[in-house]
Amino acid sequence: MNTAAAPWVRIVVLPTPTIHNNIADADRLRAALALALPGETIDIDLDLLKLLPAVVRECNYRLRCALFRDRSRWMVTGIFSVDDARPILGLAVDLGTTRVVLRLIDLLNGAPLAEQAFDNPQSAVGPDVLTRIHHADTPEGLHHLNTLIITGLNSAIDAICRSVEFQPQDIVAMTVAGNTCMTHLLLGLEPRWIIREPYIPVVNRPGVLKTAALGIHVGPLARVLVFPNIGSYFGGDLIAGILFSKLHQRKDTAILVDVGTNAEVVLGNRDWLIGCAGAAGPALESGVTRMGMLAGPGVVDRVVIDPATGAFAIHAIEEKTPRGICGSGVIDLAAQLFMNGMIDLRGKLVAARCGGRLRVVDGMHHLVVVPAEQSATGEDLTISQADLDSLIRSKAAMYTILETLAMTVGLNLNELNAFFVAGTFGCFINPRSAIAIGMLPDLPLDRYIPIGNSSLEGAALALISATAIDEIDRIRDRITYLELNVNQDFMNRFSAAKFLPHTDPGRFPSLPHS
Amino acid sequence: MNTAAAPWVRIVVLPTPTIHNNIADADRLRAALALALPGETIDIDLDLLKLLPAVVRECNYRLRCALFRDRSRWMVTGIFSVDDARPILGLAVDLGTTRVVLRLIDLLNGAPLAEQAFDNPQSAVGPDVLTRIHHADTPEGLHHLNTLIITGLNSAIDAICRSVEFQPQDIVAMTVAGNTCMTHLLLGLEPRWIIREPYIPVVNRPGVLKTAALGIHVGPLARVLVFPNIGSYFGGDLIAGILFSKLHQRKDTAILVDVGTNAEVVLGNRDWLIGCAGAAGPALESGVTRMGMLAGPGVVDRVVIDPATGAFAIHAIEEKTPRGICGSGVIDLAAQLFMNGMIDLRGKLVAARCGGRLRVVDGMHHLVVVPAEQSATGEDLTISQADLDSLIRSKAAMYTILETLAMTVGLNLNELNAFFVAGTFGCFINPRSAIAIGMLPDLPLDRYIPIGNSSLEGAALALISATAIDEIDRIRDRITYLELNVNQDFMNRFSAAKFLPHTDPGRFPSLPHS
Repeated sequence: MNTAAAPWVRIVVLPTPTIHNNIADADRLRAALALALPGETIDIDLDLLKLLPAVVRECNYRLRCALFRDRSRWMVTGIFSVDDARPILGLAVDLGTTRVVLRLIDLLNGAPLAEQAFDNPQSAVGPDVLTRIHHADTPEGLHHLNTLIITGLNSAIDAICRSVEFQPQDIVAMTVAGNTCMTHLLLGLEPRWIIREPYIPVVNRPGVLKTAALGIHVGPLARVLVFPNIGSYFGGDLIAGILFSKLHQRKDTAILVDVGTNAEVVLGNRDWLIGCAGAAGPALESGVTRMGMLAGPGVVDRVVIDPATGAFAIHAIEEKTPRGICGSGVIDLAAQLFMNGMIDLRGKLVAARCGGRLRVVDGMHHLVVVPAEQSATGEDLTISQADLDSLIRSKAAMYTILETLAMTVGLNLNELNAFFVAGTFGCFINPRSAIAIGMLPDLPLDRYIPIGNSSLEGAALALISATAIDEIDRIRDRITYLELNVNQDFMNRFSAAKFLPHTDPGRFPSLPHS
Repeated sequence: MNTAAAPWVRIVVLPTPTIHNNIADADRLRAALALALPGETIDIDLDLLKLLPAVVRECNYRLRCALFRDRSRWMVTGIFSVDDARPILGLAVDLGTTRVVLRLIDLLNGAPLAEQAFDNPQSAVGPDVLTRIHHADTPEGLHHLNTLIITGLNSAIDAICRSVEFQPQDIVAMTVAGNTCMTHLLLGLEPRWIIREPYIPVVNRPGVLKTAALGIHVGPLARVLVFPNIGSYFGGDLIAGILFSKLHQRKDTAILVDVGTNAEVVLGNRDWLIGCAGAAGPALESGVTRMGMLAGPGVVDRVVIDPATGAFAIHAIEEKTPRGICGSGVIDLAAQLFMNGMIDLRGKLVAARCGGRLRVVDGMHHLVVVPAEQSATGEDLTISQADLDSLIRSKAAMYTILETLAMTVGLNLNELNAFFVAGTFGCFINPRSAIAIGMLPDLPLDRYIPIGNSSLEGAALALISATAIDEIDRIRDRITYLELNVNQDFMNRFSAAKFLPHTDPGRFPSLPHS
């Protein structure tokens, strides 16, 4: 077995006890593991001690040991006969506020075996972090939220294991990357102070815990690595993203952006990392427009307007009949509207150019994107002036955050060699459109690299690579967190960014100038 | 507060969180503790994380932290306000096969607060280690034995705390010293292989565990240090004894003997330690004679025979009417019988010298020690020839073990500067008598140092001194365990030691020669 490919599984053959070598089972195992892991501290806990005498004898002292590690010590997380054909599994979890994604991994070769997702059952309490934290303040509220996610996880673990005909008991290691609040609720920790100035989590580095202590039903000795956070607004999901993007190993400077309700941004290279998080406004994820929704079948994700005819070419996901529009669709739409003069520099609908698509509802302009007869709802899918205003604020906030971060280190945004865009949003966004509205800097398109669910990918990496797990804490410790100080300078930059693409068109040389 | 006097309690004042210092509660605490414990690894576990946000704020960031440590890391075991007047307690436990002794200690100044003892409730299953191990092999047997001792401990902890009007919750640290089997049963570990060749315990170094994981009801974050063992027959109780006797710190070579059913012996100094354990026969503890019993009120512990009149002067503990005789009494009696010619060189009763005290019962000689009219039982207290034969074998075994150990390192027993005698037996024994029968070497009497319940004392030391806790593992690791090889040489020495005092009277120069 290649231990480089399987850092968490070791074969050890213990010397058979004799009257001249009669050290205890646990110490015998520790000594054998110490040969494989020289100089390392090896933890053998009480639960393992209870199993050990029977197991070592049944296995005739020839063992496959599953191990896991935190900063300072290795923990035995499973113990099997070398002749046992049972798989040794790991589970990576992206613990999202809205959606939880699991990936089952064969720890012997690092291969992904299955992936499943489920809606975070805490959504029943409230869709966002804030509502849940307030709920956690009520009697039994924290216990309730904790039970919801643990129960949900246990069901999903059962299901994902069943899908490949393995057992939850075969899982010996887990990794969980989530934002600071979701992590607290998973651990049953009071999130109260996360949202109250000065915004203090209970813990920055939860480290490696026993899954049994969390109520997660996997192998009896299994451990779970919970990704660390930098603070209330910079969570383990983003640290997992950095790990996956390898931003922290680059010689040149690059940027990683994860956009949801918050924009979380990290800029840096192998020498330094600087991060910040700020409210980018909800327009970029979903929900801001009446027809706004998360990406999914039938959701409009691309829009092209024919400059000659003004006709809208609409693409909906999986080619289904349109039923709403997602963030990337809104950005496409806004870019196309702007390029065709249907919105002006300030994002206002230009009645003269919108023609028959314009409606006035409750005194406000609405633009019909998909007429009722072509929509899945049987109603017009529209975007209102208020929706567009919200998008403009969001894109301005996004650009201002990027600009502020770059300014802090004396860097020009257009100098970046790589711009990683994480998350569902990152997968669907058309960078050309995002540049056209001045949300993202005017980089050559090939520098925009969508990296998908980098939170899940980072969590999975830690199950596959022993060096990755070492890097997590190093990444965390190296990030300088920039507290976004919303002062007059920031507001000035924000105001300048509220134009399309910007009051300073020189920043967007690739765009046609009006 | 003098931290040297209270190594396990530290006052820490955390910087109050601000927007510019918004690390998490746990990391804030860890950073503050790191100032007090530079370079040390500090463990903050999930149970503490759950309490932490409320506690640090209630205490206004001014804390008394209780800590404990294993080889490599410090653990936070309790957290209190600096203004909280509650005591911070430790509990040392001598976990005996027959008797369990508890000492409650104030961790702030190391002062003993109370002491209590109770009979090991596992005695209901069987009086000795062997019976209990066989019981542990039956279905639910191990669980039953474990429940008995844990329940017994919890009751005793309640009682000892009540006796000084404190709460079990105030206990943050425990130490337990016991033999290897008792330790296994406390931890719920299978003792099966301890008594089967090649005699393998589950664990040699259990280390520091959470009391909650053992079901012990003390402080919610409390830890328990379980003393390590060398093997099946050399337990944590003896390591605690070495710690207390400071044998391992001496420049000159000394010996420590703990006599029960087994004789456990350690010889050494600050450079080396060699230990062994062997069956010394039950005569020395209790139970061998029909009237034999553990030391207690009314138990004969000293006997003097007037050489002129042959009158027996009997002393019973607490001056009560005699009801039995304990090991030290038997040794005194044998020495006096021998010095008065009432037993011969081989320990046989000499009819001509015993006069009216001799009875023949079932064809065997019995000697009346206390006649019926003076005894608490209303019957003669007698010692039989079989009892005396058993004593002779026991004393011969004892001497042979000592001799073998000394020979192994090329030392003459009579050169020892200090001879520590541990246990109840050690407190009551008259070294003069033990020398007279050739059980102990012929050292000047002032070199015999009874050290009482050194298992309890050693356990207590680890709660008082941070250096002591470091020494425990060092002692364990330094002991060379001599497997007593009962070969022809050993048997020859044993046969020679079966004479009173020995076939070689030159070894006992202080005794009158016949």
